[in-house]
Amino acid sequence: MKLLVKELNQRGHEVLVLVPDSSLLIHSSESFKTEVYPVSFTKADLDGRFEQLTEGLFLKPPQMTDIFLNVQRLVNFTSLQVEGCESLLNNQTLMSRLRVGGFDLVLTDPFLPCGSILAHLLSIPAVYFLRELPCGLDTKANQCPSPPSYVPAAFSGNTNIMTFPQRVKNMLMSGVESYVCRIIYSNFDDLVSRHLEEKMTYKELISYGAIWLHRYDFTFEWPKPIMPNMAFIGGINCAKKAPLPAEIKEFVDGSGDDGFIVFTLGSMVSNMPEETAKQFFEAFRQLPQRVLWRYTGVPPKDAPKNVKLMKWLPQNDLLAHPKAKVFITHGGTHGIYESICNAVPMLMFPLFGDQSDNVNRLVAHGVAERLGIYDVTTEKLLTALKNIIRDKSYKEKIVKMSEIHLDRPVQPLELAVFWTEFVMRHKGASHLRVAAHELNWIQYHCLDVIGFLLMILFTVLWVTLKCCMFCFRKCCRRESAKKKKQ
Amino acid sequence: MKLLVKELNQRGHEVLVLVPDSSLLIHSSESFKTEVYPVSFTKADLDGRFEQLTEGLFLKPPQMTDIFLNVQRLVNFTSLQVEGCESLLNNQTLMSRLRVGGFDLVLTDPFLPCGSILAHLLSIPAVYFLRELPCGLDTKANQCPSPPSYVPAAFSGNTNIMTFPQRVKNMLMSGVESYVCRIIYSNFDDLVSRHLEEKMTYKELISYGAIWLHRYDFTFEWPKPIMPNMAFIGGINCAKKAPLPAEIKEFVDGSGDDGFIVFTLGSMVSNMPEETAKQFFEAFRQLPQRVLWRYTGVPPKDAPKNVKLMKWLPQNDLLAHPKAKVFITHGGTHGIYESICNAVPMLMFPLFGDQSDNVNRLVAHGVAERLGIYDVTTEKLLTALKNIIRDKSYKEKIVKMSEIHLDRPVQPLELAVFWTEFVMRHKGASHLRVAAHELNWIQYHCLDVIGFLLMILFTVLWVTLKCCMFCFRKCCRRESAKKKKQ
Repeated sequence: MKLLVKELNQRGHEVLVLVPDSSLLIHSSESFKTEVYPVSFTKADLDGRFEQLTEGLFLKPPQMTDIFLNVQRLVNFTSLQVEGCESLLNNQTLMSRLRVGGFDLVLTDPFLPCGSILAHLLSIPAVYFLRELPCGLDTKANQCPSPPSYVPAAFSGNTNIMTFPQRVKNMLMSGVESYVCRIIYSNFDDLVSRHLEEKMTYKELISYGAIWLHRYDFTFEWPKPIMPNMAFIGGINCAKKAPLPAEIKEFVDGSGDDGFIVFTLGSMVSNMPEETAKQFFEAFRQLPQRVLWRYTGVPPKDAPKNVKLMKWLPQNDLLAHPKAKVFITHGGTHGIYESICNAVPMLMFPLFGDQSDNVNRLVAHGVAERLGIYDVTTEKLLTALKNIIRDKSYKEKIVKMSEIHLDRPVQPLELAVFWTEFVMRHKGASHLRVAAHELNWIQYHCLDVIGFLLMILFTVLWVTLKCCMFCFRKCCRRESAKKKKQ
Repeated sequence: MKLLVKELNQRGHEVLVLVPDSSLLIHSSESFKTEVYPVSFTKADLDGRFEQLTEGLFLKPPQMTDIFLNVQRLVNFTSLQVEGCESLLNNQTLMSRLRVGGFDLVLTDPFLPCGSILAHLLSIPAVYFLRELPCGLDTKANQCPSPPSYVPAAFSGNTNIMTFPQRVKNMLMSGVESYVCRIIYSNFDDLVSRHLEEKMTYKELISYGAIWLHRYDFTFEWPKPIMPNMAFIGGINCAKKAPLPAEIKEFVDGSGDDGFIVFTLGSMVSNMPEETAKQFFEAFRQLPQRVLWRYTGVPPKDAPKNVKLMKWLPQNDLLAHPKAKVFITHGGTHGIYESICNAVPMLMFPLFGDQSDNVNRLVAHGVAERLGIYDVTTEKLLTALKNIIRDKSYKEKIVKMSEIHLDRPVQPLELAVFWTEFVMRHKGASHLRVAAHELNWIQYHCLDVIGFLLMILFTVLWVTLKCCMFCFRKCCRRESAKKKKQ
């Protein structure tokens, strides 16, 4: 979102970012002003809850039942954020300043509830910037049809083409999703009903979003129905380009024909167990490629010479280097889009959240291989990496995917800016809001109409039947009377 | 489509247009080559069938039952086109030349079947250029959800917000639509099964369309679900701009503060009954505005001086003139988009086809008034025209609509060119094709899965019930045995 904010600032817009004084990610910048408000929890609390999300990843394979554990952890994490939002909304001084601030819109990720509530309180439109929401709340709130017959449910492991058993599973998972939705968003619902209207749910609140900027792209996601107020800006992060630092440049330039491998499991995993790290080190030692590894643990003494460990990697710029051969990643969408933009095949270790689904899609597209982080061995690593490097089909397929991904009428950053400015210019995008929002579940699916028509049909049938029987009886009686007479 | 072809030609593409030797609309041009093939009917046959479509319009108000009459006339018209297509497909010389022509794609309006069949025979992708197809075949073929609870059915007279009785009507009309579809496309189906595969329907054939360029825009149409392979190019015809001819320019420039009115009922209506024309002449005589009228009949001797009759009007350029006050139109989409682009409110006389639905939408948006051509009088005309000119809300609303319509990330002509070239570059757009095409009706709606789950549920319930009853009986027996003993 920072990229979009920066671009908006360059086009003359003033941006104010509201930051809790214990914040995970937001730092000050030249592109925007910040307004820091106090919250009741510390950065350590937040980090603690955040780390919970990735607990136990290296120990055992993920199970179906982990869904409920992960939901609980997610609720733990977001409940702190709800507290933070409460602090903001109860901060009378700040709120009255915001009320007279003359803002045109709220730009927010509806993964957290505060932006949407603020937009509603200030009576200004909201533009959403997101990949998607847990349990598909974005689809539901925006009235976007999502037929379970070919849209794979989260965590189902399905692709868009399913056998009968897979469709049964998909249907059941969709049911679980609805149940999970209620748990995940219950404290959001409470927050909304405390600060806005008594009976409003979070889903209802976000249904007012003017434009949904989805970090989504159909080269990588399975195609499915969409809505007129959805704009697709998947790969927007590829716009962030910079020259490589001299030290890194020298390392990768010198990697020869064998090229190099980029390895990071993202910012959410801080430390990898020593035993797991050892498997990686041993595998890398046997490869002719050089390796750049985002590694925050203590480096071993005998680390192979072809491996460079760093606390942070200029990921996109590294993948853009022509000698980049493989990207080892956990399958977060940021990394995936950078890999697609730069056409680098992947070796993937999905950790949690939507990552497993992402990885499934890329493996199905033939541009990645998948391994488990909990049982990774040097052999498995070597087989997978050598396969990706030697078998040309991985590279060919991702080159094709990349070409299609980059071939768009408007580049994602520009598209995001356009729609944000559009909403400012026209005070919303009401012409793109479907009337389905005014219908309840029964009306939407025409169940009342179907019931009514069936009632008429049965009445007509019943009356016809009664008439027939009446006539039949009359005839019979006459017949028997005749016979008696005879 | 001519605009798109011209633009493609300017960007270096070679375009070949296949023209039956009896053609309604296609003339040669510098922008494309033509290949004329002989057909079994004459231009007079074609004109005759075409005129049938508008027969009786001036005599009586349209009825619900006209649907069936109009469907029959439409089938009469398209059956000639099917004959024409047959002539092309059986023309071995031409077909073998086309086969080795090295074409990249077929650009066609699927309203007529020949383009899609040709694309399939030549194994090249098809790009569709259309508004929409009769009875919503485009939506059905492209697997685009269209919930009857808020997407008004054709000819229903509904808007996107419906009462219960309106929803009942909408549902019934959707049912009629499915029936009508079978009649309209039956000779297309036959043609397809004769020339392609035995059991292929026309709907199935057009489902392979790579990109659907819809002359559609949500400022004017009700928003509804869409698909990733649909691009919206409504208003593409506004790109056709030219300076006004001197004679016309003088006439409209001299219209003073009162401005002028543009009046045309489109190219499909050749002659208006004298009595109807008289009502218009009398009304115009009493107006301070000047009137430009596309009039092909014999001009009366006492035509008012403020009226200029012409065989053809530069419609878009006239509407772009700042003094244009009202556009009197039949409600074809071409004219409507030109009116929206140039923000001129409308007085509408829907004649046939989708025009009545178009008019309903614009009236609901408050940018137009509606009158019937069969019972128009001077008084009605004067009231409506004075109302549109005096009541500022019509102008204000269409100015707002126009601003939103024109405010797009990519202008429609450019977007159409982009997607056409995209399909050429990537030999299709398979990444945007949903997997729903592989499912039958039962699978799509998960009816098999629901049936299976219900079966399991009932089995479990039945077994549980039997077990309970068994236990209950055992207990009872013991109880009664005890009692007997006692």
